[in-house]
Amino acid sequence: MDHDDAGALASAPNRIELFRERRARHNERIFEIDHRGIKRFFRLDSAAYEPGALDARTKELLGLVASAVLRCDDCVDYHLDQCIEAGLSDDELYDALNVALIVGGSIVIPHLRHAVESIDLIRAGRGER
Amino acid sequence: MDHDDAGALASAPNRIELFRERRARHNERIFEIDHRGIKRFFRLDSAAYEPGALDARTKELLGLVASAVLRCDDCVDYHLDQCIEAGLSDDELYDALNVALIVGGSIVIPHLRHAVESIDLIRAGRGER
Amino acid sequence: MDHDDAGALASAPNRIELFRERRARHNERIFEIDHRGIKRFFRLDSAAYEPGALDARTKELLGLVASAVLRCDDCVDYHLDQCIEAGLSDDELYDALNVALIVGGSIVIPHLRHAVESIDLIRAGRGER
Amino acid sequence: MDHDDAGALASAPNRIELFRERRARHNERIFEIDHRGIKRFFRLDSAAYEPGALDARTKELLGLVASAVLRCDDCVDYHLDQCIEAGLSDDELYDALNVALIVGGSIVIPHLRHAVESIDLIRAGRGER
Amino acid sequence: MDHDDAGALASAPNRIELFRERRARHNERIFEIDHRGIKRFFRLDSAAYEPGALDARTKELLGLVASAVLRCDDCVDYHLDQCIEAGLSDDELYDALNVALIVGGSIVIPHLRHAVESIDLIRAGRGER
Amino acid sequence: MDHDDAGALASAPNRIELFRERRARHNERIFEIDHRGIKRFFRLDSAAYEPGALDARTKELLGLVASAVLRCDDCVDYHLDQCIEAGLSDDELYDALNVALIVGGSIVIPHLRHAVESIDLIRAGRGER
Repeated sequence: MDHDDAGALASAPNRIELFRERRARHNERIFEIDHRGIKRFFRLDSAAYEPGALDARTKELLGLVASAVLRCDDCVDYHLDQCIEAGLSDDELYDALNVALIVGGSIVIPHLRHAVESIDLIRAGRGER
Repeated sequence: MDHDDAGALASAPNRIELFRERRARHNERIFEIDHRGIKRFFRLDSAAYEPGALDARTKELLGLVASAVLRCDDCVDYHLDQCIEAGLSDDELYDALNVALIVGGSIVIPHLRHAVESIDLIRAGRGER
Repeated sequence: MDHDDAGALASAPNRIELFRERRARHNERIFEIDHRGIKRFFRLDSAAYEPGALDARTKELLGLVASAVLRCDDCVDYHLDQCIEAGLSDDELYDALNVALIVGGSIVIPHLRHAVESIDLIRAGRGER
Repeated sequence: MDHDDAGALASAPNRIELFRERRARHNERIFEIDHRGIKRFFRLDSAAYEPGALDARTKELLGLVASAVLRCDDCVDYHLDQCIEAGLSDDELYDALNVALIVGGSIVIPHLRHAVESIDLIRAGRGER
Repeated sequence: MDHDDAGALASAPNRIELFRERRARHNERIFEIDHRGIKRFFRLDSAAYEPGALDARTKELLGLVASAVLRCDDCVDYHLDQCIEAGLSDDELYDALNVALIVGGSIVIPHLRHAVESIDLIRAGRGER
Repeated sequence: MDHDDAGALASAPNRIELFRERRARHNERIFEIDHRGIKRFFRLDSAAYEPGALDARTKELLGLVASAVLRCDDCVDYHLDQCIEAGLSDDELYDALNVALIVGGSIVIPHLRHAVESIDLIRAGRGER
């Protein structure tokens, strides 16, 4: 990716930013409906990635690979955001995505393509590309 | 688990040992059929867990969680064997399995039960229980 | 959701209306191709939700939860339309979606978000929000 | 099924009884490992089937169909036990399994065969066959 | 596989023969329950593999690969029986299973191992090994 | 589909053309990242569809059905492109998609609708509609 592409990636609201905004808005609506089971599940989901016997960085990688083999682009984008925030390098993310590709097969390829583009967009949004 | 149970677990060929023997025998048969694509896939599969940007220990954990959310008991047992060989503690394995449970839901529970028993059997086989 | 939002939801063709139009157009094209097996499957699919030992309302809920755990947004929207037509309340739909969330795990969350928005859009289209 | 078969079904420990025993033993082991996230998930799972906006009977049917389309025999057996305890008739269970078959396709057939046999075994164990 | 193994494979009831017997018995029970939707689905399922624009041989291969990527051993065994009856060679079956392995990834490997053993057992039962 | 519709389908960049362009651009980016495992998987994936014991035409049909039951629209579009290039007729493609529908169930229907529209778009782009 040359310098101009990087500039283009950073300039306008991109699909990662739209995803974050949509996700926040939808979560707000879900908390509004006030279903006890759903609320407790959301808290338990957050808690699963907090540091414990494994550190947060490893847990986010686990979440990324689980999302990739189950082929959920929104989940992949969410965990990529967290992984990059936790300081994982591109090469570490590619290595994790390669495990997902081998375990899940060619059906994972469209999600691998999506993930690689998401990494570029997230890095660009942070001024790292 | 009290002392007598641990003794029982260690005494006779158990399902983990039978799984290892069956897996070895079946792999041998697959190499015999000599299909180039299948052979190359098996080598690529092994290569995915060799240390790279991520260490082997992290990669085995990724393989474990991918196997658990895709609900493959044989794959779970294989990666548990590798994880324990790589020195991961019970608490680290339970933390990884908890991520799989949250991502994959209650449908993962039978595989969680299987995995917890497999950890006990593998540890017992190594004289660690 | 305040009154203005509800107004906005009701005003223009929304994604539910576009889904219904697209679905009808595509089904028409499928009937045109005149494949006997495909036609019979479509009839069998409709028949599965007709009242029998279980009433239509319960069957539509079953279709909704099956669609949610299998993570098919179009299928979720179709069954939400049928459920709301059959008179199910928001709280009943949320309770069914909670079962889907627990069985299917956090990978279902993007589809839960989609479903909650769809319920709002379908209700708004019926003048019920 | 003639009278002699019914007698045979009721006479000795069958796979449903072995499943219940194994499930209880494994759950006990899981509670022993004392992982907070896993324990909370198990409680949330139980809570999802308690009566709320939907009654327990409907929720167990939802759990049954979700388990069948996700093709988990242990989960199917667990929910069949609960459904029968909740008073659902054979015809109601077959109607729910038919929805699972149509949504999930022929890949569900082995699980349908399993479920129909499980219903016979559970009824026989209760003296209802 | 040497001559003695082939002899051992052919000598006693093996898992393929037990599968065929169990499948026949369970199907009989399912027809007994006389649910119209289930019966019609079973007929539609059989009809899907009858010669049409594609010949039966190609359709059975499609059924085999669909079963393998969806990871259903009973379905794999059923379609292998049909494929071998239709005259497909080992090399053709391995080529089809290789497509399933690439599309579905390493999670398919346990089912590939199962399928390769099933081919040996089916051939042995026909006196072809 | 009457003559005017066919004209409309052929006139402007459609979703199939956009898919091909996006796929090519993303693949280029993936080769840029230069991960050995990922590159080898991509080569192995291409090799799986080259003529061997089975011809390329049959292998593409296998890829199509595997993609449809695993419910990946991008994969379906890719294999439809290859199938049509290999000379498969509409009736042969519908017959293959019918197998996918029966194996995978009604959850495949949205992907069947997508596939039938894709066939029309690909044919129109080739001047065959």
